[in-house]
Amino acid sequence: MRLSRYFLPVLKETPADAQIASHRFMLRAGMIRQQAAGIYSWLPLGFKVLKRIEQIVHEEQQRAGHIPVLMPTIQPADLWQESGRYNAYGPEMLRVRDRHDRDMLFGPTNEEMITDIFRGSVSSYKDLPLTLYHIQWKFRDEMRPRFGVMRGREFYMKDGYNFDLDEAAAHHAYNRHLVSYLRTYERMGLQAIPMKAEGGPIGGDYTHEFLVLADTGESGVFYDARIEDIRLGSREIDYDSVDQCRGVLDEFTELYARTDDTHDAADFEDAVPEEHRREARGIEVGQIFYFGTKYSEPMGATVQGPDGKPVPVHMGSHGIGVSRLVGAIIEASRDDKGIIWPEGVTPFHCGIVNLKQGDAEADAACESLYAGLTALGLEPLYDDRNERAGGKFATMDLIGLPWRITVGPRGLKNGVVELTSRRTGESEEMPPEQALERIGSIYSGV
Amino acid sequence: MRLSRYFLPVLKETPADAQIASHRFMLRAGMIRQQAAGIYSWLPLGFKVLKRIEQIVHEEQQRAGHIPVLMPTIQPADLWQESGRYNAYGPEMLRVRDRHDRDMLFGPTNEEMITDIFRGSVSSYKDLPLTLYHIQWKFRDEMRPRFGVMRGREFYMKDGYNFDLDEAAAHHAYNRHLVSYLRTYERMGLQAIPMKAEGGPIGGDYTHEFLVLADTGESGVFYDARIEDIRLGSREIDYDSVDQCRGVLDEFTELYARTDDTHDAADFEDAVPEEHRREARGIEVGQIFYFGTKYSEPMGATVQGPDGKPVPVHMGSHGIGVSRLVGAIIEASRDDKGIIWPEGVTPFHCGIVNLKQGDAEADAACESLYAGLTALGLEPLYDDRNERAGGKFATMDLIGLPWRITVGPRGLKNGVVELTSRRTGESEEMPPEQALERIGSIYSGV
Repeated sequence: MRLSRYFLPVLKETPADAQIASHRFMLRAGMIRQQAAGIYSWLPLGFKVLKRIEQIVHEEQQRAGHIPVLMPTIQPADLWQESGRYNAYGPEMLRVRDRHDRDMLFGPTNEEMITDIFRGSVSSYKDLPLTLYHIQWKFRDEMRPRFGVMRGREFYMKDGYNFDLDEAAAHHAYNRHLVSYLRTYERMGLQAIPMKAEGGPIGGDYTHEFLVLADTGESGVFYDARIEDIRLGSREIDYDSVDQCRGVLDEFTELYARTDDTHDAADFEDAVPEEHRREARGIEVGQIFYFGTKYSEPMGATVQGPDGKPVPVHMGSHGIGVSRLVGAIIEASRDDKGIIWPEGVTPFHCGIVNLKQGDAEADAACESLYAGLTALGLEPLYDDRNERAGGKFATMDLIGLPWRITVGPRGLKNGVVELTSRRTGESEEMPPEQALERIGSIYSGV
Repeated sequence: MRLSRYFLPVLKETPADAQIASHRFMLRAGMIRQQAAGIYSWLPLGFKVLKRIEQIVHEEQQRAGHIPVLMPTIQPADLWQESGRYNAYGPEMLRVRDRHDRDMLFGPTNEEMITDIFRGSVSSYKDLPLTLYHIQWKFRDEMRPRFGVMRGREFYMKDGYNFDLDEAAAHHAYNRHLVSYLRTYERMGLQAIPMKAEGGPIGGDYTHEFLVLADTGESGVFYDARIEDIRLGSREIDYDSVDQCRGVLDEFTELYARTDDTHDAADFEDAVPEEHRREARGIEVGQIFYFGTKYSEPMGATVQGPDGKPVPVHMGSHGIGVSRLVGAIIEASRDDKGIIWPEGVTPFHCGIVNLKQGDAEADAACESLYAGLTALGLEPLYDDRNERAGGKFATMDLIGLPWRITVGPRGLKNGVVELTSRRTGESEEMPPEQALERIGSIYSGV
């Protein structure tokens, strides 16, 4: 993309009402625009990041054997009356009445609807196990929406639901989700630590939240520091293997890690040697639940078991906050100049800054780099505007592309351009072909 | 995908309340499930087609230089009060009140919000031309939703908006959209004829609808038969070229083609020789509008012109019914056994039917074809269930994959499998490698 033809409305001033860094940078970098309290438009740069995150979530869900569907945003109230949650949900549920005076609502979550789909289509244990998921806009009418997309009212979320014949099979589904979530977050450059949590309105007391450590997190967290050294990495996982998935869960949950909801000071002292105890803050970016037959029993979601008798299915639900992750990643990866995108989610793979727009050689070198990056299957952002170098650098630093190639007449005389890492700030001069090669090899591993 | 691990809840019976073929086939093929009147869940097969269509729309919009954003579904009412449409829109608008008693609505279209984004970010003519679009769920509270996804209440739509300095530039944007729409529909295997239309609640009297001919269409259409012979085909278009885009518009609109809203019997007789006159029915799958300063004036969307004076921008809006297209394509491409997907939008590229599941040779041959198709970058659907051949064929015909490879022990003795075209019904025996090659070459051109 050429910046002269893009729509990137960066702001010079820091917006007054934005309290945390991710919110400020998303507004300043022209990623979002507020349309009402807790409701945002995603401008081109923000939309690209949102899509990259969504794509990773899709890929990792499907790698684990989960099947995508798409449920509507507007749901009939009667499904929620069946489960008993319609009255219980409170004022966070956005209730709607249609032109025929039917009670509807903007879905805050989808346990009821997915259970309805299941009971309408599946009748035999032979069709299990089954995990369906979707990525759809949700609405929760928060009393005080704040922190930009981190706590918005309209938000984009992946929610998945497993259907299994018994508790053991449902536990495997739970473990499989834990593994796939770890891989999802690591691909985004995040360390998200699974912590014992509370069920809340979803229900069930077997549940983990995934927390990204950040000073601005809304949750207090208490954990054993050694957990920070564990990575899933690139190990191969067979998602059908009960033992492998269970093994990963054990590895990632045997050390103490809890949010303030479930923290117990005495347990913490017992379980963690003093030098490893950490108290910090974290941002919740996902949660997995096993809740057994909480929805399948009242809603009649049964299958015929191997003995011919009907059994209610064992279920769990599993959520990743897709729009929230955009903010969480920024909280975890930034400096005072702006965002620092991890390679896995960056909106453009590499910036190109032309120090002297209109100089025939500099223009040609930039065009050639642009074509070369595109031929590698990468998306460059070329700042081809007639602007001072300082302004161009400030914009690139603010929007946070992890790599930048700077092209100017002086370097070109020596046959070199400059490759700069946004994360370290280090620059290196090299011939343009070598810069292309370097960028290509960085992204071939992402 | 292996069918034994997929979720494809096909129905044997024809649903009683589905009046048209696409609605019946989408329910029977397990593509959708109704959740309330005019509100559907997209089951895995339906979701895949929806995503293929969305992807083509994105690619063709971006090829034309249009920039994706994403606006929220819930909008504040005050934007619509500014434009004067809040009271005018009537009961089709789904109105919502939030917990703080603020008036909101589920967006049926986005002229107001995009104008708000524009006026908040763009101030100079130098930032024009600009076309922003998004693909988002909309809601229109239809009195009598019917025909499945063709006339639902919650529907998925691409809507784009151009901002230009003057009428001439806005006309070029209009023509550019017409060209990109023609290419979009052709990639989906559709002929959609641009016809002079009426502005309706969007406004403006310079507008064309795109209609797919089908007996079940909701609009009467009158046109010159010679228009059916015109195709955009694979010609290269420079979307920046005013002349090229204008040339395509002229070519596609000089022959008489109108819906019953704008049809004039006397004009029709004057313009079209009797043997070329056609009266038929059509499904609207898109519409483009130029409406000048209808929104920019009341909402104050101005830019500083070259002479330093503020001028209201000239705008148009442009819509493609993404979810509706799923139904429209089926109406245009089916037979009595089921759907016949065009290659450009098929949910899976090729079916594999194993005539004797459990036979070691047949199983191995199917696995090898599965791996071969996957290696070509294609998605096969392998019916690996223990079912009668007749049932497997009926399912494949119903869900409409354009190509099927049938593998059985008898053929394998002679070293052949059978390749069948869903469209013609013709089958041909050939070695498995040749079948792979054939499928590969068919899709390399799509």
